[in-house]
Amino acid sequence: MAFQYLTNISLKKAKIEYENILVGEGFAGKTEKISVMDSCGRITAHAVYAHICAPHYHSSAMDGIAVDAKDTFGATETTPVHLKTNQYTVVDTGDAIPDGCDAVIMVEDIVQEEGGVCIYAAVSPWQNIRQIGEDICAGEMILNSYQKITPSAIGALIAGGVLEVEVIKCPVVGIIPTGDEIIPPTEDPKPGDILEFNGSIFSAMLQEWGAKAVIYPIVPDCFDEIKSMVNRAVEECDMVILNAGSSAGREDYSCQVIKEIGDVLYHGIAIKPGKPAILGYQKEKPILGVPGYPVSGIIVIEEILHPLIDLWNHRKIAEPQYVDAVLSRAVVSSLKYHEFVRVRLGYVGKRLIASPLSRGSGVISSFMKADGMLEVPQGTEGYEAGKTVTVRLLRPLSELKKMLVAIGSHDPLLDELADLLHRKNQEIYMSSSHVGSMGGIMSARRKENHIAGIHLLDDKNGTYNVSFIKKYFPHGGVRLVECVGRMQGLMLAPGNPLQIQGVEDLQRKGLRYVNRQKGSGTRILIDYLCKTKGIQTNEIYGYEREEFTHTSVAAQIESGSADAGMGIYSAANLYSLDFLPICIEQYDLLIPDEAWDTPMVQQLIEILKSDEFKACLEKLGGYKIGNPGEVREWFRSV
Amino acid sequence: MAFQYLTNISLKKAKIEYENILVGEGFAGKTEKISVMDSCGRITAHAVYAHICAPHYHSSAMDGIAVDAKDTFGATETTPVHLKTNQYTVVDTGDAIPDGCDAVIMVEDIVQEEGGVCIYAAVSPWQNIRQIGEDICAGEMILNSYQKITPSAIGALIAGGVLEVEVIKCPVVGIIPTGDEIIPPTEDPKPGDILEFNGSIFSAMLQEWGAKAVIYPIVPDCFDEIKSMVNRAVEECDMVILNAGSSAGREDYSCQVIKEIGDVLYHGIAIKPGKPAILGYQKEKPILGVPGYPVSGIIVIEEILHPLIDLWNHRKIAEPQYVDAVLSRAVVSSLKYHEFVRVRLGYVGKRLIASPLSRGSGVISSFMKADGMLEVPQGTEGYEAGKTVTVRLLRPLSELKKMLVAIGSHDPLLDELADLLHRKNQEIYMSSSHVGSMGGIMSARRKENHIAGIHLLDDKNGTYNVSFIKKYFPHGGVRLVECVGRMQGLMLAPGNPLQIQGVEDLQRKGLRYVNRQKGSGTRILIDYLCKTKGIQTNEIYGYEREEFTHTSVAAQIESGSADAGMGIYSAANLYSLDFLPICIEQYDLLIPDEAWDTPMVQQLIEILKSDEFKACLEKLGGYKIGNPGEVREWFRSV
Repeated sequence: MAFQYLTNISLKKAKIEYENILVGEGFAGKTEKISVMDSCGRITAHAVYAHICAPHYHSSAMDGIAVDAKDTFGATETTPVHLKTNQYTVVDTGDAIPDGCDAVIMVEDIVQEEGGVCIYAAVSPWQNIRQIGEDICAGEMILNSYQKITPSAIGALIAGGVLEVEVIKCPVVGIIPTGDEIIPPTEDPKPGDILEFNGSIFSAMLQEWGAKAVIYPIVPDCFDEIKSMVNRAVEECDMVILNAGSSAGREDYSCQVIKEIGDVLYHGIAIKPGKPAILGYQKEKPILGVPGYPVSGIIVIEEILHPLIDLWNHRKIAEPQYVDAVLSRAVVSSLKYHEFVRVRLGYVGKRLIASPLSRGSGVISSFMKADGMLEVPQGTEGYEAGKTVTVRLLRPLSELKKMLVAIGSHDPLLDELADLLHRKNQEIYMSSSHVGSMGGIMSARRKENHIAGIHLLDDKNGTYNVSFIKKYFPHGGVRLVECVGRMQGLMLAPGNPLQIQGVEDLQRKGLRYVNRQKGSGTRILIDYLCKTKGIQTNEIYGYEREEFTHTSVAAQIESGSADAGMGIYSAANLYSLDFLPICIEQYDLLIPDEAWDTPMVQQLIEILKSDEFKACLEKLGGYKIGNPGEVREWFRSV
Repeated sequence: MAFQYLTNISLKKAKIEYENILVGEGFAGKTEKISVMDSCGRITAHAVYAHICAPHYHSSAMDGIAVDAKDTFGATETTPVHLKTNQYTVVDTGDAIPDGCDAVIMVEDIVQEEGGVCIYAAVSPWQNIRQIGEDICAGEMILNSYQKITPSAIGALIAGGVLEVEVIKCPVVGIIPTGDEIIPPTEDPKPGDILEFNGSIFSAMLQEWGAKAVIYPIVPDCFDEIKSMVNRAVEECDMVILNAGSSAGREDYSCQVIKEIGDVLYHGIAIKPGKPAILGYQKEKPILGVPGYPVSGIIVIEEILHPLIDLWNHRKIAEPQYVDAVLSRAVVSSLKYHEFVRVRLGYVGKRLIASPLSRGSGVISSFMKADGMLEVPQGTEGYEAGKTVTVRLLRPLSELKKMLVAIGSHDPLLDELADLLHRKNQEIYMSSSHVGSMGGIMSARRKENHIAGIHLLDDKNGTYNVSFIKKYFPHGGVRLVECVGRMQGLMLAPGNPLQIQGVEDLQRKGLRYVNRQKGSGTRILIDYLCKTKGIQTNEIYGYEREEFTHTSVAAQIESGSADAGMGIYSAANLYSLDFLPICIEQYDLLIPDEAWDTPMVQQLIEILKSDEFKACLEKLGGYKIGNPGEVREWFRSV
């Protein structure tokens, strides 16, 4: 038993060894007999043969009369044949053919007459009869082993007299959440409480893969209690996930527990996120130690457990689809690990653009937003911006073709636009990345977005946006589309306890500021305001503390960890903060000509002009609404 | 209200009008609130916003000590800073940051000393802290309206304090089977009984589309009972399928019932199969009259009901994938209807070959076997063999690339080979079409198959197969691979009540023969035997009654509708028939050179040589096993 503590084994090698050991111990899909009616989507355990023929009797294929074909021989237009009532039986479609008959004459071809019927054409034996076994013959193989049962297969099985079928049993996976600070989901957690949602994520994933999840009660960080719960889960389930926290102390428990109950093959895999995974087992049952951060956990069970479930189910993993995409930002990776980087994808012109999402292993929203996964192999330093990389798709390519890519300045109204767009046309999706106004302009120059929200103040003349476009698009080729005027100001704790009256007060001792990132329009605004008022920004405590959205600045102030931050009224409003208005700025959309004619942008313009959008703005608050959707200026291509 | 009796309205027009009328009456997806934990795969009814931030408190991103960053300012390698125990708090990863602290120093960067710790580097405010809202900010939109909830979205929702979510309610579809002759599934039906399996097929389809089915008890052909059941279903469900039989009488009931309860838009659509469909409704609830034959029913509910369910669920139907394929046989279609033809698909070389399946609307197995759907528009006469047609895929293209295409003579051992292949490698599928030995040779000449089972007797010299290959492949390019010797003979009713002693007896008066189709090796054999014995085949009653497989010939004899048929021992054995051996013939596989090197054929050869295959043959019975899988002769390309 090769046990190593905190190894850095390659993922591929670890997977192969783990699978081999488990199969050697007898890991294999169990089977069960179920009713065919409940078998849709299940996998057959063996070949299935028909018990009876379908149809199981000779039946009339028409409405008409059943006859003995011999009696009709010789009938023609000129020499009709007369049949007496005892020579035929009236049949409807589907009726059984009476004994002594071997053909059916259609009702349209019969002339009624006294004491019988008259016919003008012969029928050959078995004409107009659905013969026994036309569909399926008894003894015929209906389904192979390891075949997925479809709705029509259910019909074929029942028609073939098969009412029960032996299928692969769904593997049962036990999930054990552990940790003193873990609490069941609630809307009102206390500081330090960690909401247990990994179990719900994992169980939904398992369900999609054809497994059944059992979530056990949360176990505190106590060796004996964890051990007893793992023992119970091993008893009751086919596979076990031990969801340990990521702190060193807790991990040691997990590994130690598994070693006492069974064996540990590896503790530590060369992947990021997901390194502290534990590949354990008790005889043929995998016991997988999964790190506590959700993103790490998802990757570990996707990489290690999913293939085992497919092996159990005798299914090949649907071959992942790969696409080439151009990286919008550099990705730096450690040589030590195989790294999984979530990316958003979108077609801008003919190029598929991949924008890396947050790589924090606690950032579950990054997984939700991801359209693709970029894998950076072990031993690779990463990729530069602009490089073409291969990305595994997490969403069908057809959806990506209808994705409106917004990269630029943040405003909550973007989410509302995304929602209105998708409500109107369920084929269209919108993805927003918040990189600030300057980031949006640079992205448009690199042809990586369809729209960019911008609000850039020219401090020479107090105008917005136009002079920046002239500078960065000297050859034109973009439109500036009116969106909204929006109220910028200082967001302050409710009731303004520090009595802040203006930007001048920000340098006051003991006051904690929270800022936006460099390149954002709001950062440019506060820099400008400080400059005009002669304030040294390094005198402002927290000026280097950067957040990427108005909402997150507001969230910091609401939490009490900062006293003031520059931002828009709607964000302050959302968190019920005090707000000191400073100016109304113009928030516009920059749209490159190539993007203008896409259905996504044209529908967006429609939405911008709609009453529904205006109603959304009223609800958010703090917006001055002029003529959203109007082209303010078209900088024609020269 | 435009009601027309047995119209022939175009499918497209009917669909649009039906949808418009229903939407006008208020047809729309209902919503319901459910627990987020149970929401995987469901569709949001509205945009969903976070209630709390995630993380919801400032937490340590490291194991270490929480400090006030200001206390560390100035610390360097040469000017360390000493912190007293009251200046810091020990924290683990995930712990809440205590009041008064705004940074964390990693445990690795701390030197313990008497009364406190010593540090050699300053930390900036908020360093090593996961700030509130790093993942999700309260008030942020987590999901759009009409968005499918994924496992990671479940995590994001719970992290955002959302425990309940309003989703589109699965529409409930009531299915009412009707008909005096309809009985619940059983293994032992009597002649005339029709097994009710449409309900099971439809309910599995509905489940795949995101609807819930309720199957009502079978209703006899009685107007009042049908009416009362439809009333009940309309009350209890969102949509109703009235599964009438296809005989005129029953259909009239359905249409009449719907007209009394609500309205009928059309009765009769220009599609085949599926023409007698009834597009009815009661206010906003569709009541669809569906023909009784399973294939017709599947097509009607796929074409008419599926789009309505997607409309309800605010989902666009996943865009069907179309491929170009070469038609292996002609398809003749009526100008009057838009026809749906099921086809098998397989890549032979680089060409995708489409082979039409049985078009009988009662042949449910044709739907189960179908890889694609060829639609022949109204007003088109059909397509010639060899024509390139566009086919809608019913199975992923990747699976088709691993499909072994067998077209040739029938033998039950082919099904066993298919099963052994798929058991061994779940990526490989095998599809068999039974067109007889000559059909197989012609198919190979047209490069439409990978293998062809053949057993062709050269009546000049009594040898098998070789002279035919020399004749039809004068330029070579094929291998003849040994399969089995198999016993051919006359299959007879158990106990041989008519005392049939040989082929000579077949012309006896009162004896009913059942034959194989022209071009099959078995037909050639019986033709040859009759010729050598001077028997006129038109003297044999039923000689023109053709079946396509050994099994179906056996099934006819077992049912008592024929007294004798030529076939192989294993088929007689399957039906416990008497068997009069006549000769042992060589059943071989013809494999074109282009197919030889494919992984499918190479695995097949391995299987042919395996002990498992020999065991299967023993079980089937009547085979002489030599060296299956050995190349008997390679006709090299010249």
